[in-house]
Amino acid sequence: MQLKKIINDPVYGFITIDDVLVFKIIAHPFYQRLRRINQMAMAHLVYPGAVHTRLHHSLGAYHLMCNALGELRNKGVDITKEEEQGAKVAILLHDIGHGPFSHALENVLIEGMHHEAISLLLMNELNKQYNGQLQMAIDIFTNVYPKKYLYQLISGQLDVDRMDYLTRDSFFSGVSEGVIGYDRIIKMLTVHEGELMVEEKGIYSIEKFLVARRLMYWQVYLHKTVLCAEQMLQRIIKRAKYIKAFTKTPLNKFINEPIDNVTLQEFCQLDDYDVVSAIKEWSTHEDKVLSILCEGIVNRHLFKIKYFGQPVDEKLVNEKRDAVMQQLNISVADAGWLVFTGEAASNTYNFDNEHIHILFKDGSVKDISEVDNALINENMKSKVKKYYICYSR
Amino acid sequence: MQLKKIINDPVYGFITIDDVLVFKIIAHPFYQRLRRINQMAMAHLVYPGAVHTRLHHSLGAYHLMCNALGELRNKGVDITKEEEQGAKVAILLHDIGHGPFSHALENVLIEGMHHEAISLLLMNELNKQYNGQLQMAIDIFTNVYPKKYLYQLISGQLDVDRMDYLTRDSFFSGVSEGVIGYDRIIKMLTVHEGELMVEEKGIYSIEKFLVARRLMYWQVYLHKTVLCAEQMLQRIIKRAKYIKAFTKTPLNKFINEPIDNVTLQEFCQLDDYDVVSAIKEWSTHEDKVLSILCEGIVNRHLFKIKYFGQPVDEKLVNEKRDAVMQQLNISVADAGWLVFTGEAASNTYNFDNEHIHILFKDGSVKDISEVDNALINENMKSKVKKYYICYSR
Amino acid sequence: MQLKKIINDPVYGFITIDDVLVFKIIAHPFYQRLRRINQMAMAHLVYPGAVHTRLHHSLGAYHLMCNALGELRNKGVDITKEEEQGAKVAILLHDIGHGPFSHALENVLIEGMHHEAISLLLMNELNKQYNGQLQMAIDIFTNVYPKKYLYQLISGQLDVDRMDYLTRDSFFSGVSEGVIGYDRIIKMLTVHEGELMVEEKGIYSIEKFLVARRLMYWQVYLHKTVLCAEQMLQRIIKRAKYIKAFTKTPLNKFINEPIDNVTLQEFCQLDDYDVVSAIKEWSTHEDKVLSILCEGIVNRHLFKIKYFGQPVDEKLVNEKRDAVMQQLNISVADAGWLVFTGEAASNTYNFDNEHIHILFKDGSVKDISEVDNALINENMKSKVKKYYICYSR
Amino acid sequence: MQLKKIINDPVYGFITIDDVLVFKIIAHPFYQRLRRINQMAMAHLVYPGAVHTRLHHSLGAYHLMCNALGELRNKGVDITKEEEQGAKVAILLHDIGHGPFSHALENVLIEGMHHEAISLLLMNELNKQYNGQLQMAIDIFTNVYPKKYLYQLISGQLDVDRMDYLTRDSFFSGVSEGVIGYDRIIKMLTVHEGELMVEEKGIYSIEKFLVARRLMYWQVYLHKTVLCAEQMLQRIIKRAKYIKAFTKTPLNKFINEPIDNVTLQEFCQLDDYDVVSAIKEWSTHEDKVLSILCEGIVNRHLFKIKYFGQPVDEKLVNEKRDAVMQQLNISVADAGWLVFTGEAASNTYNFDNEHIHILFKDGSVKDISEVDNALINENMKSKVKKYYICYSR
Repeated sequence: MQLKKIINDPVYGFITIDDVLVFKIIAHPFYQRLRRINQMAMAHLVYPGAVHTRLHHSLGAYHLMCNALGELRNKGVDITKEEEQGAKVAILLHDIGHGPFSHALENVLIEGMHHEAISLLLMNELNKQYNGQLQMAIDIFTNVYPKKYLYQLISGQLDVDRMDYLTRDSFFSGVSEGVIGYDRIIKMLTVHEGELMVEEKGIYSIEKFLVARRLMYWQVYLHKTVLCAEQMLQRIIKRAKYIKAFTKTPLNKFINEPIDNVTLQEFCQLDDYDVVSAIKEWSTHEDKVLSILCEGIVNRHLFKIKYFGQPVDEKLVNEKRDAVMQQLNISVADAGWLVFTGEAASNTYNFDNEHIHILFKDGSVKDISEVDNALINENMKSKVKKYYICYSR
Repeated sequence: MQLKKIINDPVYGFITIDDVLVFKIIAHPFYQRLRRINQMAMAHLVYPGAVHTRLHHSLGAYHLMCNALGELRNKGVDITKEEEQGAKVAILLHDIGHGPFSHALENVLIEGMHHEAISLLLMNELNKQYNGQLQMAIDIFTNVYPKKYLYQLISGQLDVDRMDYLTRDSFFSGVSEGVIGYDRIIKMLTVHEGELMVEEKGIYSIEKFLVARRLMYWQVYLHKTVLCAEQMLQRIIKRAKYIKAFTKTPLNKFINEPIDNVTLQEFCQLDDYDVVSAIKEWSTHEDKVLSILCEGIVNRHLFKIKYFGQPVDEKLVNEKRDAVMQQLNISVADAGWLVFTGEAASNTYNFDNEHIHILFKDGSVKDISEVDNALINENMKSKVKKYYICYSR
Repeated sequence: MQLKKIINDPVYGFITIDDVLVFKIIAHPFYQRLRRINQMAMAHLVYPGAVHTRLHHSLGAYHLMCNALGELRNKGVDITKEEEQGAKVAILLHDIGHGPFSHALENVLIEGMHHEAISLLLMNELNKQYNGQLQMAIDIFTNVYPKKYLYQLISGQLDVDRMDYLTRDSFFSGVSEGVIGYDRIIKMLTVHEGELMVEEKGIYSIEKFLVARRLMYWQVYLHKTVLCAEQMLQRIIKRAKYIKAFTKTPLNKFINEPIDNVTLQEFCQLDDYDVVSAIKEWSTHEDKVLSILCEGIVNRHLFKIKYFGQPVDEKLVNEKRDAVMQQLNISVADAGWLVFTGEAASNTYNFDNEHIHILFKDGSVKDISEVDNALINENMKSKVKKYYICYSR
Repeated sequence: MQLKKIINDPVYGFITIDDVLVFKIIAHPFYQRLRRINQMAMAHLVYPGAVHTRLHHSLGAYHLMCNALGELRNKGVDITKEEEQGAKVAILLHDIGHGPFSHALENVLIEGMHHEAISLLLMNELNKQYNGQLQMAIDIFTNVYPKKYLYQLISGQLDVDRMDYLTRDSFFSGVSEGVIGYDRIIKMLTVHEGELMVEEKGIYSIEKFLVARRLMYWQVYLHKTVLCAEQMLQRIIKRAKYIKAFTKTPLNKFINEPIDNVTLQEFCQLDDYDVVSAIKEWSTHEDKVLSILCEGIVNRHLFKIKYFGQPVDEKLVNEKRDAVMQQLNISVADAGWLVFTGEAASNTYNFDNEHIHILFKDGSVKDISEVDNALINENMKSKVKKYYICYSR
């Protein structure tokens, strides 16, 4: 086995792999499947460059983890070889449980299950295959390992996952304003009383990071056309389940059988390609609702969508629904699949959750929302919400 | 219809669309299909970022065409509104005839037919649908239009197609050395006696462009692992045809019926997703050759490949073939599918073809290979060839 | 005279000049002087790349003005050829009145005079030399021209000056987080009732722009080491005036004669080179205060600086001052030159001034601080202030 | 003393300093002087961004040295702590002997002395000040240290000096085509039998590097306007010496006394600022030749320059000289200062000198010009030469 491998990455230049276990995991079919899962689901319908994969993102997050651990060590934080490997493996696998189109179909394809839970199942499976070598990674990933900062690097408001996806999504979508100073932030990381913190002089970089994230949410992830396409995608799966639509693809079992019948192995063979193939198949399905939704995705004939500051006026919904009923000669129930409302929400900083802590030179610690002249303040406690209506044209 | 649309592109910043016909073509299912065709086939197995699509590339080439036409006009070249639209439409559609995995499966899936020929069929079809509005584009594309430089912008050694794909492939693969000065080259373009030329002061940019292309060929397009994967991909299709392997996907007709049975409409529904789905299906096929090839692509268990300066020694081939026969208990003929040789070739500059002409201030014209102290000289007349062997491990 | 010139710019690629009057102004000694004035004064002592010039910045702002005017015209705003030229010339000359080290010595070298006032004097002088051709530029610059949006493009919270300097300073200093989406912002500009506004969908880009500016202030412009060096620079000039220090350089007249004696012509011959030469000369001056300050700048032996959230404790000041008195054997008054306090202030958005207006699709107009879920809100009405002490080590 | 310092660099992101001796050297006035020496002399008159300093370049080369040493160590090359420090210090100081405007005035201001010789003098001086701590650096720099590859990293056709200046000059001038793959090249470096070599798979990167260098020479370093300005600059110094022109600046001693009178200390106080101040002073000198040359530089009123493939026709020279004599009423000898010819030469690869060696997998070694299908071949043995005439307008 080669001892060192360099991977070209347009974002970071080169990503270096030099750990045998990491090699093996990357070469494993579980991991290679991530090549066939788009990182940004339907965002490429608006941002044509946004076609990078979950595999690429997890490699990127792995790279940032290597940098972050190196930086912390330089600052005197004691990190053992085992912990280093554990943290690297954990971040590499943090998204391994994602199914086709990741977030866009989460809880839709596999109801009632978050990708983290499946990631854990797969990590346990790999742990068996590799004779317990992943135990440390699992302990860190599940936050039972005593050094909490390792968990925080993987899952928190300032983890390397978030740093990579903001950087990478901004890069591939071409939304240059989403750029964050990941390298500066990493250089500002430190550990204080076992927790991950940011040095005082990193405050502005953190504010900038949170605002870039806010921008990416509204400009990209919740861009109205992207949201519309992803809502259509969800309805395709839901409708197919509802009418028990058959497909020749492996997706069929996920549509037409109880989810408990599906094995982990079968899950691991499913990816975007199966879903897209099924959508192409269904685009001429006899069920009008299903075929309209599918044809819309295949040919980018997307529904019309409008955003509002308040819940959508019922009158408008009824008006659009009536129009669709008449135009397509379908029932009011079916029209409800083609004219629907919802809300999109995002917050700039989560005040309730894993906080971002600033460590001052005098040893004191403050939440980023509590520093002097904080940009991120109480005013932002409530989520920003937008209400939308989508309807078939 | 919206009169102006801006598309974010990580490579050029923004691409502007402001022509109604161009809008319609982009929105057409023929064009949207290019979203599902990877620009670089299997290159992403080595360069994980290289997952951009044919749609993105043709939008990019369109953008450069807009710039080039604008530049020429500024220099006093008379270009009518119709010619402008024709050239833009022609470049937008130059790759419309590409099938799944474009070059990698060209002549394999649809034997005996180049993508340009299919592009022309599709352009004619669109011309019908749009009442002859594409006639100018077709005349330019087929080089029957008198202003030859318009054709040269689309198809030549210095066309906007090439400029975009080198720039874009280098960008997404992260091979920054492949970067060319497309903007400077475009500013140096001029028309002399009806032909596209480059101003004298652009000589070094052109040399640089040719060397960047040379590098991209050997470092990326013909990278041994990429080449190996694409050879495996070709053999999958050939083997499937040979053993008449069934697949539930729409690819089946292309595999199991004479190509003449396939309609243009059916071709237009085929894309990478069908091929990948078939490969996944066949990865457990009972034919060992087919399943080994398919499993290799799905899980990135690629064959071993070695490059040589001379044709591969027969002894080595036999030795590897024998090993595979024994290991898999298959016939010598079947082993030939899993152990094979070939040659990869590329030239830095094509001395026989459409030349790159330099226009000097004194009005004289020289081929780029004939300027004083030319970097590109007779020494490079013959193609660079490398010979390879691939074999199942 | 050449009709078109292309200038390479690492920030924007190419800057195109195609107006005869603009050519002449750029070639004028008044303008060429800006080559010898550093855009960021002493920031290069911390960010070694930050050595770009005022000339480069004004060319950049000119480039953005060209883009902005083109964009507005595309949107149907009627802009005459004369207005276009006027706006371009005005932005090109907006900083022509800057003296050596621009802001860092503003009001110090030429007391009681802002650079805009001198810019106007010089524009009037050029207007004479060019037979009134600059009148439109002057009318726009002084905001007497009726189309107010032209003035707002030059001087406002969202003018092309600001867009260029943030972009350029961030680029050259290497503080990538300061990057703004200048191209997207420009595409979002519009004119409504004669005023410059931003379209609704540009809100997040504007927020991001304001936060990037906030970051640039605290991370770069008011970086404590930069601020310290610039304070030392100011004190050098003030001390030299105070003790009537002679210098062989042309700076002498500015130091030792009433400012009224200085002619505009003499001002136009002064630049950073004279000031640095004088500082080098004075670094061995017999006046200890002057020579310590000068040697500090020449050899980057900067004073110690500390930032505080509240005004600096008098005790600390006295302590440091006593130490310096003893160490250098100087009077308390002289020690005051080497130990001093001050405050640095910056606001994220100026609520009192030229506002940034958002134009909504329904035709309504709101201040950026008053949109739904505004990031920029009342909480930020007061300036952020930091207090500092600097002292000779 | 701080143990680790991070410097922002727009080219590489961050440069890390973590060696006490390196800290001290950077803080030394000898080194700080490099802040006041422009890396690219007069190139900024064409490329306004090209105003970066020698200090910035040597920091950059130091950064690449750190990377290269790290890479070689990873490959098992044994490099001691002392050798590492020595190589770093040597590259940091390799340009310390440059005088004002570096190459442009080399051998003109200090006749008969190359900057490397002065660098060595200064390194010896620093070695005294730091009690012999620079001995290793000096041994490496003078190529007496047995591990020859350390010297080759500093001075050869593929040293980190060259890699940094091509990368940096291309970055700041905005000539993006000059970009080289410095990071890939460094990853391909290896040591074989004590010599620095490049691994086989780096061949295309090396070719690309040489072609980028070729482009940078003709497009930037020997750009006709840049060359003209630098020729004017040289003639200013020569003319000033010839007519014994007085200047109030410290340059006076260098102009009006034998060079042997100048002490090393005095040399170390001279920089671009003195030369520019003198030029400004002389721009109204009574000697017409001197004042014309000086005014030309100050106000960018550059001479006209033309390039030819052959030596300039004597007729043309005489014609231009006569015109200048008449126009300015000066002697033929004086006119010779304002109308002059010369030649500019550059080679793509130096066949006689320090070669670039490629190490093949089979252990064989070839010169880059001797590999199969070499781009760099015998055809390029002779230098590319261009002949020019410059004349006052």
